[in-house]
Amino acid sequence: MEASAATLSRIGLAGLAVMGQNLALNVAEKGFPISVYNRTTSKVDETVDRARQEGALPLFGQYNPRDFVLSIQRPRSVIILVKAGAPVDQTIAALSEHMESGDCIIDGGNEWYENTERRIQEVSNRGILYLGMGVSGGEDGARNGPSLMPGGSYEAYSNVKDILMKVAAQVEDGPCVTYIGEGGSGNFVKMVHNGIEYGDMQLISEAYDVLKHVGGLSNSELSEIFSEWNRGELESFLIEITADIFKVKDEAGDGYLVDKILDKTGMKGTGKWTVQQEAGLHDGVVSVKSGIDKKRLIDDVRQALYASKICSYAQGMNLLRSKSDEKGWNLNLGELARIWKGGCIIRAVFLDRIKKAYQRNPKLASLIVDPEFAKEMVQRQAAWRRVVGLAISAGISTPGMCASLAYFDTYRRARLPANLVQAQRDLFGAHTYERIDRPGAFHTEWTKLARNSTAGVGSLH
Amino acid sequence: MEASAATLSRIGLAGLAVMGQNLALNVAEKGFPISVYNRTTSKVDETVDRARQEGALPLFGQYNPRDFVLSIQRPRSVIILVKAGAPVDQTIAALSEHMESGDCIIDGGNEWYENTERRIQEVSNRGILYLGMGVSGGEDGARNGPSLMPGGSYEAYSNVKDILMKVAAQVEDGPCVTYIGEGGSGNFVKMVHNGIEYGDMQLISEAYDVLKHVGGLSNSELSEIFSEWNRGELESFLIEITADIFKVKDEAGDGYLVDKILDKTGMKGTGKWTVQQEAGLHDGVVSVKSGIDKKRLIDDVRQALYASKICSYAQGMNLLRSKSDEKGWNLNLGELARIWKGGCIIRAVFLDRIKKAYQRNPKLASLIVDPEFAKEMVQRQAAWRRVVGLAISAGISTPGMCASLAYFDTYRRARLPANLVQAQRDLFGAHTYERIDRPGAFHTEWTKLARNSTAGVGSLH
Repeated sequence: MEASAATLSRIGLAGLAVMGQNLALNVAEKGFPISVYNRTTSKVDETVDRARQEGALPLFGQYNPRDFVLSIQRPRSVIILVKAGAPVDQTIAALSEHMESGDCIIDGGNEWYENTERRIQEVSNRGILYLGMGVSGGEDGARNGPSLMPGGSYEAYSNVKDILMKVAAQVEDGPCVTYIGEGGSGNFVKMVHNGIEYGDMQLISEAYDVLKHVGGLSNSELSEIFSEWNRGELESFLIEITADIFKVKDEAGDGYLVDKILDKTGMKGTGKWTVQQEAGLHDGVVSVKSGIDKKRLIDDVRQALYASKICSYAQGMNLLRSKSDEKGWNLNLGELARIWKGGCIIRAVFLDRIKKAYQRNPKLASLIVDPEFAKEMVQRQAAWRRVVGLAISAGISTPGMCASLAYFDTYRRARLPANLVQAQRDLFGAHTYERIDRPGAFHTEWTKLARNSTAGVGSLH
Repeated sequence: MEASAATLSRIGLAGLAVMGQNLALNVAEKGFPISVYNRTTSKVDETVDRARQEGALPLFGQYNPRDFVLSIQRPRSVIILVKAGAPVDQTIAALSEHMESGDCIIDGGNEWYENTERRIQEVSNRGILYLGMGVSGGEDGARNGPSLMPGGSYEAYSNVKDILMKVAAQVEDGPCVTYIGEGGSGNFVKMVHNGIEYGDMQLISEAYDVLKHVGGLSNSELSEIFSEWNRGELESFLIEITADIFKVKDEAGDGYLVDKILDKTGMKGTGKWTVQQEAGLHDGVVSVKSGIDKKRLIDDVRQALYASKICSYAQGMNLLRSKSDEKGWNLNLGELARIWKGGCIIRAVFLDRIKKAYQRNPKLASLIVDPEFAKEMVQRQAAWRRVVGLAISAGISTPGMCASLAYFDTYRRARLPANLVQAQRDLFGAHTYERIDRPGAFHTEWTKLARNSTAGVGSLH
C-alpha cells in the first residue's frame, strides 16, 4: 500500500532490521496504520512484502526521511530501532529536520541512559518530545508481544499509549507496558532487566554444571529435571527452553547438540593448558567423595537455584531503587515486576510474587527482607550451602550462586569483618572510623599504640 | 622565603591539602626549589611554616595564579593536587592562562582517565603539555616517598624525571616511578592499583572472619598469626599493619579497639533484623561441626589467602593489558609491578615475583599460567577449597576468595557450562553458536526439534 495525503499513518518506524520489521508488523496487525523507513531501501520493500503476505496489514513503505515523516499524522510519533550510539544521533538528525514542535522520537534500542538524557535536552530546543523505550523479548517478542519500558516525556507516552497497550505482551493483569518515569529511566530499567536476564542464565548454567559433573546426569535426565522444575516455583521461560535444549540431538553426528557447542568465555590458548597440565586434571573436575545421593543433589540444586535467583532479583531491584532515588524517577518496582511477567526473556510466575511483595510494602529495603521471601531463603539455606560447598570441593565454581549467598549472608549476619578494613584505612590514610557504642568519627595512632603494647607492662598508656 | 626574579623555582604545586603539602615538602627536601599555591591562602602560609620548621626547605609561597606560574622556570611544570572532576578543570583554567607553549600541567589526583585524555586535547591547542600522574601511598607516602604513575606527554615526563626519581619511594631495584604510557594511562593504572588494594583488604578481612568465627581465634592470637604470615610469602604492608591493629586496646573501655569499630557496609536498619529473626540466628554464624583443627585451619587460611591474592593480581594485570591493547599504551606490566614494590599500600615482596614472571614472559596470558604461580596455586588448591567450603557451611561468606577460586577454575577446566548459555541465546534470539568440532556460526530451530524429538519413533527427522 502507499500512504495517500488523505490517509496519514498513525505512527512511524525507522530502522528495519528484523526487530524493527517485526515491531512494525505487530503495530500494523493491531490496526494502527504505520509508515516504515530504512536507509537501505531494500529493507523497506522487504517489510512491505511481509505486511502484504500477512494479510494486507496497514503498513506503508517510505523511501526518504521527508516523505516518511510527512506521511505520519500530527503530533507525529516515530519509533527508531537502530544500533545504539552514533547511528541513533544520525537518525535523529535525518528525521528531526522534518519534524515539528510536539512531535516525538521514540528510541527503542538498548541505549545508555545518559545518551537518552542528552538527546532529550537536544531535541527539546525545537519542542520535540523524546522517549527512550526498552523493548524486551527479542525478535519473537517484537512480533508477538514484547515487554515495553518507555521513559521520558509523559506527554509523548500519552500520545502512543493506546498503541503500546495493544502491541505489548498481554498477561492476566494487563499489557506488559507502563510509563516508567522521566529522563533515561526506560533505558536504565531495560539495562537492569538485561543484567537480571544474564544472571538467570548464569545461575541455570551453574545448576547444569553441578548436575552434570557432580551428579553425573545425562542430557535426557537433565531435560526431565528442568521440565519438572518448570512445573514448580522455578516455572519460567528460561527453565522451559533449557528443558527443550537438552532434548535436541546433533543432526550432524551422534549425541546431543548441546555437547557440541563451544563454551565461549573468551578464555583460550596455551595458557589454559599450562594450568591444566600443572594441575594434572584432564577432565577438569576434582574427584568428589563417592556416594553422592543423586535424588537429594537434584533437590538441593533446585533449592540453591531458587534462593540464588531471589538474591539476584533483590540486587537488581535495589540497583533500580538507588538510581531512582538519585534521579528522582519515582520508579514503581512492583509495576516493573508486573510488566516483565510477559513478553520478555525473564518472564516467570516468580515475578508475580515480586509484584505482590512490593504491593505489600512499596518501601521494602530488599526483596530478601520481605517476610515470604526471607522465609523461603531460610528454608533453603542448608541445601544452598551444601550445593555451593560441594561444587567448590569438586572444582566446579558456581560464582553466581556464591555471590548470591554472600549477599544473603551480608543481610543475615549481625556484623561483618569490615571493621578491620575501617581500621586499616584509618591506620594508613587517617580516614577515621565510627564506633559501635557511640556516635562520632574517631582516629587512632594505631602503629604507635601497637608498638607500645608490645613494650609490656609499664609502657606509656 | 620569597622567590625573587633571579631565583625561579624548578617546579610548582597547586592544591595544598595534606597530600599536596606533603608532596611539596618532599620535593623541596630533595633539593628542588618549589613554588606552592592554594586558593585558600592560609594553606600557603601553613605549608611555608612547615617548610621552615623542617629546616628551611626551598619552598616558596605564592598568593595568586599569575605570580605562582611566573615564579617557575621555563618550561614550567606545575603539579596540581585538587579534587578530581570540576576542580581540576577550574584549576587548569586559572593556571593555564599564564602558562606558555611547552609548559606542563601534572594532575596528581585520582582522575578518571578519560577526563585526562579530554584535557590533554584541550590544553594542546595552546601547546601546553599534560601528565595524569597516579600518586599512591597516602599522606605518608607523599611526604616520604610515594609510588608515582605518570602518563601522558613523554616530553613533559622528561622535564621532571630527575625530580620524580628522587621524590619517589626507593627500593633495591630503583625508584618507584616509571613513564607509564600515553594518554590517560597513568590514571588508569592508578585506578587498577586501587582496585587491587581494595581486593587485598577484602581478602584479609575474609581471612580474619574465618579465623575469628570458625577458628575462634582471639585478637592476640590473630596478631601473632598475621605477624608470622608477614615473615613468609604473604609479607606486605597490609599484613604487617593488620598484625598491629589486633594489638591495640580500646583506651576508652575494656577489650580491643578493633571490636568497637563499626563495620560500615551501608547495610542497616530493620530489614537486616527481619532476615536475622527469620533465620533464628543471633550471632550470625551457623554452627559448624565441632572438632575444627585450629592449627590446620590457620595453615589452610594462609594458603587460601595467598592463592586468592594471586588470582586477584592476575585479574588486575589482565585488566591493564586489555586496556593497553585497546588504547595502544604498550604498558610494561613487569615494570608496573616493580614501581608498586615501595611507597604504596600494596607494597609486598610478592610484587617482585610478579615482576619476574613478566620478565620471563612479557606476553604471559595471565599470572596464573606462569609456571611458578600455577604450581603454587595447584599446591594450595585443596586448602583453598577447604577454607571456602568451611566458610560457606558456617554461614560466613568469603566472596573475594570465592571469586578468585572461580577465576582459577575458569582457567583450569577444559570446558565451562557456557555452551548452555550459547544454546539459550540461539534459541530465543537467533544469536548463533560455534561448534567444538568445526568452524562457522550455526543456528538451530531448537524448539521445533525438541518438540519433534518427543514425538517418538517415526518423527520427521
